[in-house]
Amino acid sequence: MRDVTDHADLEVLSTDECFDLLASEPVGRVAFIADGDPQIFPITYLVADNRILFRSGEGTKLNAAAHARRVAFEVDSYDAVNHRGWSVVANGHARLVDDDERVQGMEDHLEPWVEAARANWIEILVDDISGRRIPD
Amino acid sequence: MRDVTDHADLEVLSTDECFDLLASEPVGRVAFIADGDPQIFPITYLVADNRILFRSGEGTKLNAAAHARRVAFEVDSYDAVNHRGWSVVANGHARLVDDDERVQGMEDHLEPWVEAARANWIEILVDDISGRRIPD
Repeated sequence: MRDVTDHADLEVLSTDECFDLLASEPVGRVAFIADGDPQIFPITYLVADNRILFRSGEGTKLNAAAHARRVAFEVDSYDAVNHRGWSVVANGHARLVDDDERVQGMEDHLEPWVEAARANWIEILVDDISGRRIPD
Repeated sequence: MRDVTDHADLEVLSTDECFDLLASEPVGRVAFIADGDPQIFPITYLVADNRILFRSGEGTKLNAAAHARRVAFEVDSYDAVNHRGWSVVANGHARLVDDDERVQGMEDHLEPWVEAARANWIEILVDDISGRRIPD
């Protein structure tokens, strides 16, 4: 069967592939709207139950999450020499995780890269995910 | 002199460092607002005269650019084993490049990764740039 491609001749990935690839990377980028402007930040994250989970300090990211705003999240991996690669984009709502038991479980699974006070956990409830791969 | 750090204990990069790092990577992610929601896409790009330049087909990215909307752009590089890395975020307005001479110059410098019709060039006029590095 021929793989499905989009208008840019990129291979369209299945939802399962997208979630598998999402779980395979340590760093992604979250985009959201703050004061009417698009914002983007890199984050380390976990994936569980089709949710994307990350730590946040008091600030813009947390503010976005606390208001259950829509966010977009992107991960990719590429080989710049051979022009190969894939990307996955997830869209959903962000919200604060306030269940201590869940927070403890996440603390055990995501080692911080920087020792700073970022006590809050945010989750993105994914309602749409799509992925593309540069075909052979 | 001690390096400047932010509230998360990340080293704050100078504007010159940010533009140097921006020019060192082949793939970045552009975030913008479409139909009220944040959107994010990976792109290959060039940097010239403090502008970020990329190809676009007819679609969402181009639509955002054609309306001179604000966009955010992110690049990063990291070592997931040793928890090292940096990121740079640029903010600005996107617009269509309609100068044939400039387009030809860009065509000569950015080989497409996918052979698809993406005839238009978009430029981001950067008005703010910031970067962070995980300190030693």
